[in-house]
Amino acid sequence: METVTQDLATVTAAARTAAGPAAAATDAERAGWLHAVADALDANTAELVALADAETRLGPDRLTGEVARTTGQLRLFARVITEGSYLEAVIEHANPDSVPPSPDLRRMLRPLGPVAVFSASNFPFAFSVAGGDTASALAVGCPVIVKAHSGHLELSRRTAGIVADALAAAGAPDGIFALVEGRAAGTALVQDPAVQAVGFTGSIPGGRALFDLAAARPDPIPFYGELGSLNPVVITPAAIAARGAELVTGLAGSFTLGAGQFCTKPGLVFVPAGTSFGADLAAALSDAAPAPLLTDRIARAYPQGLAALASRPDVVVLSGATAQDAVADGAAPVVFATTAANVIARPAELLEECFGPTTLLVEYRDDAELAAALALVPGSLTATIHAEEGEDVGTLVAQLSGLAGRVLFAGWPTGVAVNWAQQHGGPWPATTSLFTSVGATAVRRFLRPVAYQDAPAALLPAALREDNPLGIPRRVDGVLQ
Amino acid sequence: METVTQDLATVTAAARTAAGPAAAATDAERAGWLHAVADALDANTAELVALADAETRLGPDRLTGEVARTTGQLRLFARVITEGSYLEAVIEHANPDSVPPSPDLRRMLRPLGPVAVFSASNFPFAFSVAGGDTASALAVGCPVIVKAHSGHLELSRRTAGIVADALAAAGAPDGIFALVEGRAAGTALVQDPAVQAVGFTGSIPGGRALFDLAAARPDPIPFYGELGSLNPVVITPAAIAARGAELVTGLAGSFTLGAGQFCTKPGLVFVPAGTSFGADLAAALSDAAPAPLLTDRIARAYPQGLAALASRPDVVVLSGATAQDAVADGAAPVVFATTAANVIARPAELLEECFGPTTLLVEYRDDAELAAALALVPGSLTATIHAEEGEDVGTLVAQLSGLAGRVLFAGWPTGVAVNWAQQHGGPWPATTSLFTSVGATAVRRFLRPVAYQDAPAALLPAALREDNPLGIPRRVDGVLQ
Repeated sequence: METVTQDLATVTAAARTAAGPAAAATDAERAGWLHAVADALDANTAELVALADAETRLGPDRLTGEVARTTGQLRLFARVITEGSYLEAVIEHANPDSVPPSPDLRRMLRPLGPVAVFSASNFPFAFSVAGGDTASALAVGCPVIVKAHSGHLELSRRTAGIVADALAAAGAPDGIFALVEGRAAGTALVQDPAVQAVGFTGSIPGGRALFDLAAARPDPIPFYGELGSLNPVVITPAAIAARGAELVTGLAGSFTLGAGQFCTKPGLVFVPAGTSFGADLAAALSDAAPAPLLTDRIARAYPQGLAALASRPDVVVLSGATAQDAVADGAAPVVFATTAANVIARPAELLEECFGPTTLLVEYRDDAELAAALALVPGSLTATIHAEEGEDVGTLVAQLSGLAGRVLFAGWPTGVAVNWAQQHGGPWPATTSLFTSVGATAVRRFLRPVAYQDAPAALLPAALREDNPLGIPRRVDGVLQ
Repeated sequence: METVTQDLATVTAAARTAAGPAAAATDAERAGWLHAVADALDANTAELVALADAETRLGPDRLTGEVARTTGQLRLFARVITEGSYLEAVIEHANPDSVPPSPDLRRMLRPLGPVAVFSASNFPFAFSVAGGDTASALAVGCPVIVKAHSGHLELSRRTAGIVADALAAAGAPDGIFALVEGRAAGTALVQDPAVQAVGFTGSIPGGRALFDLAAARPDPIPFYGELGSLNPVVITPAAIAARGAELVTGLAGSFTLGAGQFCTKPGLVFVPAGTSFGADLAAALSDAAPAPLLTDRIARAYPQGLAALASRPDVVVLSGATAQDAVADGAAPVVFATTAANVIARPAELLEECFGPTTLLVEYRDDAELAAALALVPGSLTATIHAEEGEDVGTLVAQLSGLAGRVLFAGWPTGVAVNWAQQHGGPWPATTSLFTSVGATAVRRFLRPVAYQDAPAALLPAALREDNPLGIPRRVDGVLQ
């Protein structure tokens, strides 16, 4: 059922009306809303997991874990807003002796207004109806309108019903949350004057199209897109020598996890030339079972991506079937190999994300060739180094820090912890913003600063009152308290 | 002398090369660079003011004060980076007992890379070659390429020479700072792959054109534009009754300051219907002397803006000459008046910024009409309330907080203090971002987060090492230290 234009107008008008009360609610009240949503989802886990498994085939174990991650995320944002640092409250008292005299000035962050959230196919809970974008926007008082992903519509409807009921029961304002369906509704949302920001997780072409719409508005709005990521891994000769077998096992597990349908899948692995790493990886995967892909669209696109690489004279297929019917019964892992010299010569052709259980090994001959190839890798969510103590990798770390939002050592990028220190975002096309979509600071995307100059005490928001009634961290006259 | 393409390529290549060492420099080293620039500008104030006065006719007093503001700003950013909160350093230690186990994760902000800065006409120092955008970008380790404003080219060249020499003498890397000239160079800068962000202060059409270029890049980059602002003022009946004469004097001084060429000029003033405020303001301005406008372009546009309003049947000219030759010998103040009902009926025609010493009084009959008219006012840098104790203005404050980045009480918006609490930025078209271009947090525009997962101690940036060698504020395991 597609949302028709008239419905959408009702939804956005309601969100606009809800923006005032949502912003005026206290952080404690909004924390209560988030807990109510989390508790309701937890209470309905079994039903939700069954619905999700029927539509995504991700399996009950993974999906049950993902519900827990999603409700944990809601509760983290409740803690974040209660702690209060997120408001960035700053007070500068008047200084009549400065030249010119300076006024009493008090600054804090305030909610942007209604936010449109586009769900992802690959995380039907954690990046979907009640996922991180929704949780972080609601947390700071922004109404949310979710565009359901067509890959799990029934789950989206049921989740939205649970969220809406929980919010209403917890006293959140009418209109603070809604679900819309269909591509046309999504496009209209990004252009709707009521909508003040967009959160999106999906493909580069889809995200780019919506980004362009957001930027072309008479009043451009921020578009927070998480689009695509190769997640390069660099393995040094010493690491191969010290723990080659362990690296083979680790990489095999990481790039095939969830049938390779993670935004943090390691899709590009730099290995020293002249080792058996590729052959060992192929051997480790020889018995790998095929796993189902999420949607028909992915199941169509994936073999096309495989075929494009398989047909190239500068690429070798080390493992797996790449024929067009390779995913008829699910996708089995595919490993490709090429050389850093090839990447340097033809980066556009070789450095394209292929969403599914495949990875490209790139053999490099020395540090200079490695650095030259890495310089051509597009922005990524993550970059990983496997090196040994005593190796001088300072230059490599600096290069990878410029390429990705998270730099990992001796691990694999597919796990994303949800806490204060997480960064899930990187240079284009990984994301479109200077923020993260996972972890505590995700709320900053939906806030803008407002300063109050010489305001009477009674008109100040509680966060800025002289006696600090909320007990939050603030900076007063330049000093953090 | 326009910058030719080949020169520009040299400049951007040098900036790209400088980005690594600029980012690797310690905050203490970069603070030293800022102090060196500030000291050099201070030492050359007399020469710079003479150059600026010849090109802008803003007068030695104002210009001398602006140099001091500019060097004070450079020194503020030196304090900001030395204090270290701007890095947003966060440490989460590994937790093997969580489900799933969580890794050691440490996050901080890192410089974006080369930044293009477009100077403003109206602040030849504070928003120009060595102004706030340049200072905040250099502070955090981003090389800067300034596009000179054609209104003060000689001053721009001399300032750039002083800045470049001071940076070199202080040990900053080659290529960290450059000046380019001409519209073509500006356009090319925004599209250059080396440039990672743009700071701009200027007109809505000019800013929009560059914003569109930045958004249309294969890799879109953030464009921080400060474009246009009406800066609405609301005066209540009680305020008029209590201190009408003072309000007349205050408004007359604020909207004519610098010949009305401030981004914070109060251009739209809501006054209760049926008072003598308009007549009193007109009387107060009857002897006002004409003041020179900054550039030929402004001197052409300003009388066009006046004529458009003067010719309207729903607008009254209360004071001043609006004929096309009104600014031949400088611009004298012009006061227009209309009604809130007219604004509600024809907002697009009546709510356009007119850059120069003019303001539009809007007479409102009651709070409902005021609220309806305010709802149509575009985003602004500031909004001002003149009310008296005991009046219930809570709803009005909430509405103005949604409209502007700074809400003032019983003051005038044309002064902008430079400190930790300042917010100079508001909803479109005031600015294009969720940040400020004035004050301590302006640095956040040129930073992006990077998290390090399970990094060996020796490879961590100093800000994230366990023993906190920089002694900066950090959040550790969720607690601010």
